[in-house]
Amino acid sequence: KWLRHSGQQESEAVEHGESNEILGRDTAEPGPSQFWCGVGNATSPCCSCAAQQRCLKETQRYMLAVPTRWIKFEEKVEDGGERWSVPHVPALRLHSLFELRTCLQEGTVLLDLDAHSFKEIIALSAQPDAWEPELQDCLAALLLCQPLHRTTTAPLRVLTELSLAPCRGTPGNTAGLRNQFKKKLLPGAEVASVMVGEVDFLKKPFPVFLRLREAVTLGSLAEVALPSRFLFILLGPQAKAKAYHEIGRAMATLLTDELFQRIAWQAKHQEDLIAGIDEFLDELTVLPPGKWDPSDRIPPPHCLSSSNKRYPGGRAPTAFDGSCEGPSLAHLHTSEELERTGRLFGGLIRDIRRKAYWYRSDFSDAMHIQCLSAVLYIYLATVTNAITFGGMLGDATANMQGVLESFLGTAFTGFIFCLFSGQPLTILSSTGPVLVFERLLFSFSEDYGLDYLEFRLWIGLWVAFFGLVLVATEASHLVQYFTRFTEEGFCALISLIFIYDSLKKMLSLAEAFPINWHYQTDDVTLYSCTCNLSVPGECKLPATAPAHTLSMAPGPSNNTLSPPPITLQQCLGQGGHLLGSSCPYVPDIALLSFLLFGGTFLCCTTLKHFKSSRYFPTGFRKLVSDFSIILAILIFCAIDAALGLETPKLLVPSELKPTNPMRGWIVFPFGANPWWICLASVVPAILVTILIFMDQQITAVILNRKEYKLQKGAGFHLDFLCVSLLMIVTSVMGLPWYVSATVISLAHMDSLRKESTASAPGEQPEFLGIREQRLTGLVVFILTGVSVFMAPILKYIPMPVLYGVFLHMGVAALNSIQFTDRVRLLLMPAKHQPDHLYLRHVPLRRVHLFTFIQLLCLAMLWVIKSTAAAIVFPVMLLALVGIRKALECIFSLHDLSWLDNIMPAAARKEAEGKLHRKQEEQESNADEESELMYRQGREINISVN
Amino acid sequence: KWLRHSGQQESEAVEHGESNEILGRDTAEPGPSQFWCGVGNATSPCCSCAAQQRCLKETQRYMLAVPTRWIKFEEKVEDGGERWSVPHVPALRLHSLFELRTCLQEGTVLLDLDAHSFKEIIALSAQPDAWEPELQDCLAALLLCQPLHRTTTAPLRVLTELSLAPCRGTPGNTAGLRNQFKKKLLPGAEVASVMVGEVDFLKKPFPVFLRLREAVTLGSLAEVALPSRFLFILLGPQAKAKAYHEIGRAMATLLTDELFQRIAWQAKHQEDLIAGIDEFLDELTVLPPGKWDPSDRIPPPHCLSSSNKRYPGGRAPTAFDGSCEGPSLAHLHTSEELERTGRLFGGLIRDIRRKAYWYRSDFSDAMHIQCLSAVLYIYLATVTNAITFGGMLGDATANMQGVLESFLGTAFTGFIFCLFSGQPLTILSSTGPVLVFERLLFSFSEDYGLDYLEFRLWIGLWVAFFGLVLVATEASHLVQYFTRFTEEGFCALISLIFIYDSLKKMLSLAEAFPINWHYQTDDVTLYSCTCNLSVPGECKLPATAPAHTLSMAPGPSNNTLSPPPITLQQCLGQGGHLLGSSCPYVPDIALLSFLLFGGTFLCCTTLKHFKSSRYFPTGFRKLVSDFSIILAILIFCAIDAALGLETPKLLVPSELKPTNPMRGWIVFPFGANPWWICLASVVPAILVTILIFMDQQITAVILNRKEYKLQKGAGFHLDFLCVSLLMIVTSVMGLPWYVSATVISLAHMDSLRKESTASAPGEQPEFLGIREQRLTGLVVFILTGVSVFMAPILKYIPMPVLYGVFLHMGVAALNSIQFTDRVRLLLMPAKHQPDHLYLRHVPLRRVHLFTFIQLLCLAMLWVIKSTAAAIVFPVMLLALVGIRKALECIFSLHDLSWLDNIMPAAARKEAEGKLHRKQEEQESNADEESELMYRQGREINISVN
Repeated sequence: KWLRHSGQQESEAVEHGESNEILGRDTAEPGPSQFWCGVGNATSPCCSCAAQQRCLKETQRYMLAVPTRWIKFEEKVEDGGERWSVPHVPALRLHSLFELRTCLQEGTVLLDLDAHSFKEIIALSAQPDAWEPELQDCLAALLLCQPLHRTTTAPLRVLTELSLAPCRGTPGNTAGLRNQFKKKLLPGAEVASVMVGEVDFLKKPFPVFLRLREAVTLGSLAEVALPSRFLFILLGPQAKAKAYHEIGRAMATLLTDELFQRIAWQAKHQEDLIAGIDEFLDELTVLPPGKWDPSDRIPPPHCLSSSNKRYPGGRAPTAFDGSCEGPSLAHLHTSEELERTGRLFGGLIRDIRRKAYWYRSDFSDAMHIQCLSAVLYIYLATVTNAITFGGMLGDATANMQGVLESFLGTAFTGFIFCLFSGQPLTILSSTGPVLVFERLLFSFSEDYGLDYLEFRLWIGLWVAFFGLVLVATEASHLVQYFTRFTEEGFCALISLIFIYDSLKKMLSLAEAFPINWHYQTDDVTLYSCTCNLSVPGECKLPATAPAHTLSMAPGPSNNTLSPPPITLQQCLGQGGHLLGSSCPYVPDIALLSFLLFGGTFLCCTTLKHFKSSRYFPTGFRKLVSDFSIILAILIFCAIDAALGLETPKLLVPSELKPTNPMRGWIVFPFGANPWWICLASVVPAILVTILIFMDQQITAVILNRKEYKLQKGAGFHLDFLCVSLLMIVTSVMGLPWYVSATVISLAHMDSLRKESTASAPGEQPEFLGIREQRLTGLVVFILTGVSVFMAPILKYIPMPVLYGVFLHMGVAALNSIQFTDRVRLLLMPAKHQPDHLYLRHVPLRRVHLFTFIQLLCLAMLWVIKSTAAAIVFPVMLLALVGIRKALECIFSLHDLSWLDNIMPAAARKEAEGKLHRKQEEQESNADEESELMYRQGREINISVN
Repeated sequence: KWLRHSGQQESEAVEHGESNEILGRDTAEPGPSQFWCGVGNATSPCCSCAAQQRCLKETQRYMLAVPTRWIKFEEKVEDGGERWSVPHVPALRLHSLFELRTCLQEGTVLLDLDAHSFKEIIALSAQPDAWEPELQDCLAALLLCQPLHRTTTAPLRVLTELSLAPCRGTPGNTAGLRNQFKKKLLPGAEVASVMVGEVDFLKKPFPVFLRLREAVTLGSLAEVALPSRFLFILLGPQAKAKAYHEIGRAMATLLTDELFQRIAWQAKHQEDLIAGIDEFLDELTVLPPGKWDPSDRIPPPHCLSSSNKRYPGGRAPTAFDGSCEGPSLAHLHTSEELERTGRLFGGLIRDIRRKAYWYRSDFSDAMHIQCLSAVLYIYLATVTNAITFGGMLGDATANMQGVLESFLGTAFTGFIFCLFSGQPLTILSSTGPVLVFERLLFSFSEDYGLDYLEFRLWIGLWVAFFGLVLVATEASHLVQYFTRFTEEGFCALISLIFIYDSLKKMLSLAEAFPINWHYQTDDVTLYSCTCNLSVPGECKLPATAPAHTLSMAPGPSNNTLSPPPITLQQCLGQGGHLLGSSCPYVPDIALLSFLLFGGTFLCCTTLKHFKSSRYFPTGFRKLVSDFSIILAILIFCAIDAALGLETPKLLVPSELKPTNPMRGWIVFPFGANPWWICLASVVPAILVTILIFMDQQITAVILNRKEYKLQKGAGFHLDFLCVSLLMIVTSVMGLPWYVSATVISLAHMDSLRKESTASAPGEQPEFLGIREQRLTGLVVFILTGVSVFMAPILKYIPMPVLYGVFLHMGVAALNSIQFTDRVRLLLMPAKHQPDHLYLRHVPLRRVHLFTFIQLLCLAMLWVIKSTAAAIVFPVMLLALVGIRKALECIFSLHDLSWLDNIMPAAARKEAEGKLHRKQEEQESNADEESELMYRQGREINISVN
């Protein structure tokens, strides 16, 4: 029988127990693919046969035990029976386990009973003559009575369930699956029932353990109509309800144990079960008395370490500091994608082949509401980014590349990239490093009288050429040297740039709308601003008319005679200038902007964390959390609109012509510059190539991390090919250059997370991966493209709100890296530090040293980026890799494997060492196994009590 | 020996174990009054005798085990040996315990060894011939070698410790106490050492358990030089270091067990120890394998339930839902203070006697830095309160009582109350209900042409008279009927009034400084505000001069000819009025006020929670948290001052004269009103008496809750006497009436919390009580009194900052009551609800019903307070008590005992019932005890493995 099922999926321990002081009932169930269990509770007598009435009457005084269910973890019904407790690790008394063991040793064990209903079960199980006839009657009455199910959620649904229960023996029955609760169970789950109770006519306890030959649906014993195979019944004399209850709990816990399930399935004799219990006992963890509050319910673990997966005959790990996640050796990018083929374009061809296989699903996988939220969020982020970078590029290049170019470039390159790239979750954008370079390039061209766009065209062409060479030679293979150290340095830098830029933009708003800090309410009559149309220096007699209106007009009716006052624009248009103490100031707008900025940031952060709050159902919280950014933007746009103040708004260009009228849409390669420029531009092109390569590939490495569980693989070569080819187009059209943007791409992936819904109570929802598809990206960039025509809608979005979102993105990205955690550690006294795994394995001073070196590198990058030395910035990014390599002299490989990934060469060595050590350990474990201290025979006598 | 120590304080289990792969060492210590333990770690060979060198060389390959210490909970040294792990409940493998049991059964056990040094120990313990001479040498070398201590904090201190170690046998040695760590230990603590290790020349393990006759200081085996009594050494063949380590952990855990300690102390034979282990085994809690991540460290419990205190021969409680705190039966105010004496003024006399005893200490107990913080905080809150209520009273009574009266009244009554009252932690203040009454009284006087102050004087005198009657008849006895239900309703109402008022005040600020929401930057030239000195209606020719200046002045030099512009005050002073579109608006101030308000609130809340953050040492965090309000006020005053905007500031009256010039400082009883008013005022006086009684006593009940652990007792009668007598003074002088203010008094107590510092790692700091003294209150009110002269300093405090503090106080008070928790439950799906004890015992629907009734009552109180029916408000407060009584028909006493306190009559019944049930339970437990299922003799055989 076991073999018949062993081909099915790995069995997981989910189960149910329920005990009850009247019926005394625990349902628990082991099954081949998943065990689970509902609860039945009957605090009021529910059927009327005479025999049962009698037992009920006499047991009604004892209402102590509580119905409980076990699906991986224990949940009991709280006092009053209306509510399931928090799922918790079942903590048993060792004593109860020993008593259970005795029960199974001394009691009735019936294996492979051929019964299809309770009646048959009772009839068959009554064969051993130990049963008293009175007991049999009572038992029959008890078991046949329909228990009242108590659920916290929907009583109606349970009723449906009950009415469906009679259709027995149909485990896959779709009707039975209507129960909401079944969603939590894997298909093929079975129920096992544990029932304990006390009756007055028994002199000694009466335990029965039953295994049916075929799993049958035994009425509505459990919450959900699933087939039952195992039954444990314990009836005994009165005044011991609590002890029975504990034994029932022990049995239920035992039945949720993976190993014991298999043993119970395969058992041929009573002794096999006893051996199973002994096996179980040997692997127990014990908590000393008095150190631990028994009313504390131990919460289920966040993850069950894989080392804890137990196999028949295996042993629990002896080390008490195993971990869910070992050192990040697995985090290496030594996957097939980055292996060298040795052929020209070998990696690229592989990438194309791999991605072609998934191409169809890249569109079909996008059919989910989450994608809509992602599109809106990323669209707004992209547009804001395009405007911000467009504005800055315009500043840096005298509008040779402006906001419109930025829009068109973003839309076009993003669209093409999403359509053809290897990793379509990537969002292309102008990035900080590229912006720095453009600024340098423009001022160089100005200084030497070169034509900027033409010069840039040649650089771009060379970069594209070098890019092709790098693709051909499979240079992306080198990303294996980009370890966590490099990634984190780069990611922290980019995040800091986001934070810094959003704050700088806010301060520049405060400058654009200056506040009169010295305003006195008493001086209200002294402030004014009027238009002076006289030419400065020329002392003309006053144009009394406008002044007149201002000071005299007692009412609107008297106003008709004086010429209408003119506005700022009109005044400047007529060649006037402003005069007066209030002219330089703009009231309220700056402060309201700060309120909107802070409000949006706090709102984003709060709503994002709303997912882990306790309020409202999970689905609602998830929805709010997924749409947090959009909600925050909408809320604060609404507030801004309601207040009506003229805050700076998002202004999208609405005409399709180059920002600078001096240039056209196509840049010609020759004409403006000397001919040798096309060769000389090789030198800057090398720097740009390094920059683009680093910027693109580090982001790609971050996005393709193992922890994101991507199914469709990466495409480092293909991505870089796309970026290189797009360089040609953008250079020819004079559009900005684009590479992968770390922060927005991470936000994109984060908004597409998939999590499991079917998990037993207490189990953490599992992170299943990312919705890998091309559609969200495509839609984002199409929307970006048509944004030029959406200006009337977009103009309601205030800029401070978008800066608030930027700040949130920067802070979120910064918080997501381990580096930030380690910086925080610097401020914490050792005893208050969180129990990070790496802190258990690496000395604190080493951790601090590592953090400190990273901080130094970050500071260095920041300084280089901000000063004149910015031209060597790409080289400094490369230097990060070198510094990381040099760290191997200071830190041991063991420390680095916990704090960082290991570089390929070292990794191989380390991996071998590890294997060796592991083998050794296994050997020593085997030793332990084979040679137990002082073992005399196979038994150790211990006295209980 | 045991008897000699039994008189000492209850022994607590604190202990230490340390194991080490070279020396293999676990130190653990049981002692009469407290057990504790340091750690010794020697990863590098530290002495040079030949024998030891040999063992070391051969054992050096095994560096697996980790030094550990046990002081109540387990702490291990993390990899790298620089840091103690988080204290956690020691989770053992059951297997290791069985192995340990075998060790003690088969190994050497030496009890009452007469040794004073390691040398002697080795010499004596070598007597059983089982010792091989080689082993003896090696052991000597190992034990005599000085281990290197690793501590995370101060290596220097450890060195001091080491150098002090030689002075042995001086447990109380003050020099040894210098160690910082000793603070954590109770006096009389001892060390027990557990050492495990592997050597190559042994064929089988060699365990020794030693008990010395006298505890001696054995060098620096442990972190702190404390006497040792117990030693456990386990040396064995190689390749089993991990198993030895686990056995060592088991031994250390065993030695931290209270019961085992006693057994080990008293043991006469090896068998006694084995029996002790069996006793221990029987009380173990076990966790099933695979359900629990062994790398999770179970955090120490927040409180150890008292039911978990174990006594020799006793048993761990069987119920797994015991609790740290049972239903709040203990929360009853049936203390001696409220018992009826039956004599006139009997309660008052008792109060005076009780408080007189503590009077001296009421001043000496105030010598602590915390009191300074409390004074500053409460002073600012009181001043703000005085100003707010003063302003509102002024509004309500046409300034018959204004801000100055409020100041003087607060200072005077507060000072007198703090000097003579029963509960000097109470802060007197005007309260919302009293304010409502004053408003009604004034409008009544106006309507019927009565003199308000004279009328009020008579009411006040009558109230004082009724008050005296209530004191004489010991009416405070009735506060026993003010259960949690009444308290929470009242407290929630007052908190909501705080929150509502602070928000209302902020909105009124926005009205006082209106924002021009339709401001257009382009129209800057169109806004102005000028002074029109012409009489409206009379059409005069323009006074061109000022208008001229505004519109024309091209530079300051040209300005000399025109007359200087006049300010708002001058304009109004000259009978002009304002003209222009910008006149009604004040820029920026309202928005900045909101920024300051929100900022102060968030800052207060954040700093208050800073205590429980992980950053910075505990002392610093506590300081910041204690001073959070002051810090927040200072920070935002500084920001406000730096910005320089003219935000509304705290304005304290600086002249000592009545606000309304129509009145003097003394109110005369006759003259203005008809003579019968002095009799008619009995009717309103009854209502005021009810109001004052309820307002005063509910606050007093809240402040004197058991959970605050007040040592000096309450003084309900005395407090009410003070309030009544002060009524006379305030009525005669026309000052506001004062009663206890819930929110400020709670804030006062909260800022004076005492917490224990000496606790073992992992133990929660214990709340020790409140600094009960009179000085903080006195200083607060003296400062309030002299505030009239501190106007130049106080004028820098912006009102929005103070409103922010008010909001914080209201929110903090609202969050501190269980009612708020229960309201939150309404929004949570059952499975996400926190594991509150009352939720385990009361059905959810009942909890919701109770909350819903409370919400209804609160809404009713709010409506009554806000509408014309406000006059019956005091009666409604009384009605709360009636409603609570009526709840006994809807809810069972069991439910009420969890959700509320029980009223006196019901309590007596319930308490009896409980006692009865308890006895019954004990009996049934005894049954269980005496009659173990299937017990054959006293042994249950189980096979291990």
